Amino acid sequence: MQLKIGIIGLGRIGRIHYNNIRHHIPEADVVMVSDVDKNGLPEDVPQVDAGTLIGHPDVDAVVICSPTDTHADYVDRCARQGKHVFCEKPLDLSLDRIRETLAVVREHNIQLMLGFNRRFDTNFMKLKALVDEGKIGEVQLVKITSRDPAPPSVDYLRSSGGLFLDMTIHDFDMARYVMGKEVKEVYAAASELTGGAVAEAGDIDTAVITLKFEDGSMAVIDNSRKAVYGYDQRLEVFGSKGMAHVENNRPDNHVYYNESGASSALPLHFFMERYMASYLTEMTAFIKSVQGKLPVPVGGLDGLKATMLAVAAQQSVAQHAPVTVAGEGKPASVS
Amino acid sequence: MQLKIGIIGLGRIGRIHYNNIRHHIPEADVVMVSDVDKNGLPEDVPQVDAGTLIGHPDVDAVVICSPTDTHADYVDRCARQGKHVFCEKPLDLSLDRIRETLAVVREHNIQLMLGFNRRFDTNFMKLKALVDEGKIGEVQLVKITSRDPAPPSVDYLRSSGGLFLDMTIHDFDMARYVMGKEVKEVYAAASELTGGAVAEAGDIDTAVITLKFEDGSMAVIDNSRKAVYGYDQRLEVFGSKGMAHVENNRPDNHVYYNESGASSALPLHFFMERYMASYLTEMTAFIKSVQGKLPVPVGGLDGLKATMLAVAAQQSVAQHAPVTVAGEGKPASVS
Amino acid sequence: MQLKIGIIGLGRIGRIHYNNIRHHIPEADVVMVSDVDKNGLPEDVPQVDAGTLIGHPDVDAVVICSPTDTHADYVDRCARQGKHVFCEKPLDLSLDRIRETLAVVREHNIQLMLGFNRRFDTNFMKLKALVDEGKIGEVQLVKITSRDPAPPSVDYLRSSGGLFLDMTIHDFDMARYVMGKEVKEVYAAASELTGGAVAEAGDIDTAVITLKFEDGSMAVIDNSRKAVYGYDQRLEVFGSKGMAHVENNRPDNHVYYNESGASSALPLHFFMERYMASYLTEMTAFIKSVQGKLPVPVGGLDGLKATMLAVAAQQSVAQHAPVTVAGEGKPASVS
Amino acid sequence: MQLKIGIIGLGRIGRIHYNNIRHHIPEADVVMVSDVDKNGLPEDVPQVDAGTLIGHPDVDAVVICSPTDTHADYVDRCARQGKHVFCEKPLDLSLDRIRETLAVVREHNIQLMLGFNRRFDTNFMKLKALVDEGKIGEVQLVKITSRDPAPPSVDYLRSSGGLFLDMTIHDFDMARYVMGKEVKEVYAAASELTGGAVAEAGDIDTAVITLKFEDGSMAVIDNSRKAVYGYDQRLEVFGSKGMAHVENNRPDNHVYYNESGASSALPLHFFMERYMASYLTEMTAFIKSVQGKLPVPVGGLDGLKATMLAVAAQQSVAQHAPVTVAGEGKPASVS
Repeated sequence: MQLKIGIIGLGRIGRIHYNNIRHHIPEADVVMVSDVDKNGLPEDVPQVDAGTLIGHPDVDAVVICSPTDTHADYVDRCARQGKHVFCEKPLDLSLDRIRETLAVVREHNIQLMLGFNRRFDTNFMKLKALVDEGKIGEVQLVKITSRDPAPPSVDYLRSSGGLFLDMTIHDFDMARYVMGKEVKEVYAAASELTGGAVAEAGDIDTAVITLKFEDGSMAVIDNSRKAVYGYDQRLEVFGSKGMAHVENNRPDNHVYYNESGASSALPLHFFMERYMASYLTEMTAFIKSVQGKLPVPVGGLDGLKATMLAVAAQQSVAQHAPVTVAGEGKPASVS
Repeated sequence: MQLKIGIIGLGRIGRIHYNNIRHHIPEADVVMVSDVDKNGLPEDVPQVDAGTLIGHPDVDAVVICSPTDTHADYVDRCARQGKHVFCEKPLDLSLDRIRETLAVVREHNIQLMLGFNRRFDTNFMKLKALVDEGKIGEVQLVKITSRDPAPPSVDYLRSSGGLFLDMTIHDFDMARYVMGKEVKEVYAAASELTGGAVAEAGDIDTAVITLKFEDGSMAVIDNSRKAVYGYDQRLEVFGSKGMAHVENNRPDNHVYYNESGASSALPLHFFMERYMASYLTEMTAFIKSVQGKLPVPVGGLDGLKATMLAVAAQQSVAQHAPVTVAGEGKPASVS
Repeated sequence: MQLKIGIIGLGRIGRIHYNNIRHHIPEADVVMVSDVDKNGLPEDVPQVDAGTLIGHPDVDAVVICSPTDTHADYVDRCARQGKHVFCEKPLDLSLDRIRETLAVVREHNIQLMLGFNRRFDTNFMKLKALVDEGKIGEVQLVKITSRDPAPPSVDYLRSSGGLFLDMTIHDFDMARYVMGKEVKEVYAAASELTGGAVAEAGDIDTAVITLKFEDGSMAVIDNSRKAVYGYDQRLEVFGSKGMAHVENNRPDNHVYYNESGASSALPLHFFMERYMASYLTEMTAFIKSVQGKLPVPVGGLDGLKATMLAVAAQQSVAQHAPVTVAGEGKPASVS
Repeated sequence: MQLKIGIIGLGRIGRIHYNNIRHHIPEADVVMVSDVDKNGLPEDVPQVDAGTLIGHPDVDAVVICSPTDTHADYVDRCARQGKHVFCEKPLDLSLDRIRETLAVVREHNIQLMLGFNRRFDTNFMKLKALVDEGKIGEVQLVKITSRDPAPPSVDYLRSSGGLFLDMTIHDFDMARYVMGKEVKEVYAAASELTGGAVAEAGDIDTAVITLKFEDGSMAVIDNSRKAVYGYDQRLEVFGSKGMAHVENNRPDNHVYYNESGASSALPLHFFMERYMASYLTEMTAFIKSVQGKLPVPVGGLDGLKATMLAVAAQQSVAQHAPVTVAGEGKPASVS
């Protein structure tokens, strides 16, 4: 029996999920889609409004890829209809709103998975595996470099929640995931250095965030909205028994030498190229967890925790001081 | 209008093509399949015998993935029915038989493409592009390392035509492709060094083959049937203006350091892993060339030429001397 | 005319300088040495006490490699005798004492160079050159990884001044050097995670230090006293026009592949191996600057500034808050 | 007791040995030198004619760095005077002349070491060690890439003995050294592709040489006189248990990324840079072997064998056929 899925929102990321489910995951199919923009929707699957989709008896699970400010509401409605949900990050920009939704999810006992796709990247999974196998020993430091090739538009930036909630949130999740521990304290140093859209939006574009975990181990994240050489996504794990790191993926591994020097390819340009494979692995994991074959790998508490870290980072910048993070629940990843 | 394709032979490679055409190439679909072994065939597409498939009016083009000794016959029959053909290499082990088939193909004016999939590997395409852009200048030397992780069975070896026709044939094609010139002379030094199946089959497992091109430039290929560390596929191009090389692809790019040393991943294990993406690019190119959007990228003469080099290498070992290769036609790749 | 040099202190580092001056720098020679331990001193050069050496008319310049608590006193005495001085870092652990000595140095107008040898490492010099050539554009972030293979003894640790003054001080200097700007604020997060000698000495062994420069650009340093895989010394520079990084040097560049994986050499073991070449370049620069051929590349103010950052890091840990660094003078490197 | 050494010939390579012995090898010193060109000789050591140097009672051993056509004669004269000899390669361009000299050397029982310095390169030593430790298993293939940055002058080329005797001779020695076996057969394919000095001198500049060893294992060498990107010196060893390779050394390991791509340093420019450290290790080994602490690591038979392979390669090109190499003696390296 194929799992019957409805997708709400067929923008860039929604189409990736659509394509993966239809063509690469035999255990599931897309049975209907919903988008406010009717242009360019796939023609071989029924188009309905979001309410119809959520309530439709043919739909087993819903994949939510609509704008952030609709996420919590759609998740609530899915939960009340007993539909399992895969929701793109973040669940919401407000911690209270996230907590409300998580309560609804618990009440109706549905599966909720958050779209922290980077956990499904081959490279990062390998580092996590080395940690889990004990090859790193006690993890003492995690280092994350996460830089975008160029800032988004002013409009996007204004509704994004800012650097920490929009961009660093992935890195906060990665730090918790690789460490397998909870953060106790956040210190964030940040600047606006690139001008342009970021300056206009009144946001920051460059940040160094130090996380201190319960046992004194640490993580450090560095972000930039504008790395002219492309999308820079690196990870390092250091511990009592060893260290491991992964570098960027490249479109090919040629090296060309001439009189001027040796040159090679830049990193894969942006998240669509770099993380394409991770989206398939991620959606496959969601479908397996709905089918009861796997526990949900990234749960609602993971979304809450990452958002708490982002909010703490904002406070740290505002207060110009380290900020303590309240303990709260236990995330799927470290249950 | 989708191109309607029939596939003959659904072994390992046939299934790759089946999957690519069905799920990844919207411009085409598989309308029927044929295999002597009825077990495990896909159920959602009609299964017929090869003759029916070749003669069926619903079939626009045929993909031939059956055993080598059926290739030439199937291509002949397809040509007479006016069907375009994608045929796995080699067309045949006999040069005369290949020449007969190419005559039939010419007479009936169908498109014939040979399955030298490595031309569609991202890394090798990048080197070819550097050559074509003039970045290498006059190409003076091409170096190919091509080693399998383990020898096939004695049975396979006995019907394979030997190392040069079975394995090096890909490298012969690559040397011609990257160079864009024709080989004038072949010298092959070869040994049986791994024992086991190769020794039992009376074949060789280790070879160094020197190719001399018309203008004095050279290529050197080294082969082994048994590289314990995996599938080793490297290419280097050296010329008057520069040099470029590509290394093996790996499943991830982690490096792990502990007290004993630094370690990283082995190359992707074998051709299924290493060249998976190339099969899709290759089949897409075939479909576009049948649709008249592209010239056939790897034609029948390319198959003939590579086989001629393999036969010359066999003669070189037998005669313990360099062997001159007769000029004949012009391949698709250097037309 | 060779520059005549006296060396005070012939421990590990003193002997490196001795050997470099005697055998590799024709423009200078060692004319006398002084050490409280008479065992194993070179026999082909006169041994005297420190006072005699500093006052001796045959000595043009003094190289001070004795214990830290003697540095300031020896520099003062050299200055009063009009001798130029190369002094190993740090000048002193007390900022006031350093300021006193710098006043004496200024009053007597001698050349004083501090032993921040890493500035003379080929890799780091290359990154600095890229910055100076404008290849990085506006530098927005400097990242320094600096980890020792194993902690020193409890005795050493107790008199070392602690992690920041003993180990990070090199990284503070490197951050200022590469940036070419002054630090405005320091935040340090630190832990004791390795137990053993560090725990016994009541010190810390793991730290992440964030530096904020006057213009909002940042640097982040991560330190560990115990990297089981060896000495880890990496540097990255990120800016508006590009990014550059250098990895560790290794004793050789072999890669070995077998069935278990691919392995390569660990980084050069410790500072003696990694920075050996830098000591020669450094001493050559000192001799040239005494001879008036070059300005002093690392002056007394550089020593003061680095120590100020170390003290600020200590305060940051103690106060659990970011600490502002007072502006003071202008270092040699950014004059 | 220091070993007292006289050096004949103070060109580029003679000066390297001079400097190494004087400044870096405490167990030896240069007591006199001889060169037909009196300009620029070191002033702090007596200058004499070659005959005086060879016969002088103060000289224990002679380092011969004069032109090739004087080597055999000087070695003969040293042997008759009972002086140990380090001689730059080749001993002579004539196999008969080499055999005569080796007879003289045997008769007078002196130590003779040949200057195959690449055996003392850290990278190549590491590969040799892996072979000796059994990590490669039965070695089946050795691959050597050896390319110069630019051809020498016409004059040099005319008296060089040609590509194989002048340049490939190092690679022939390396192949034997790493393999630890003797070559049975040589096949060389060669061309003149770079024009200029090489064309004028009537030499070749590009070659692929296949060596077959007694047990069927092979080596392949590729040479070019003109690699525009610099000195290209790589080695690979492949066998039943694994494979290892070493890449070129670079002046630094930076990688710089900007919008156009990623770039890094070219290989060290030429043999002076790449092999500088090997000359010191080599000379240290010579001095130890004269002192009886080590067997001679590269003996006269090694020189003879490498020359035999070069002559065989010349014959192979002339005869356009593989050439069998006569067995003769046993070299130092595989004794």
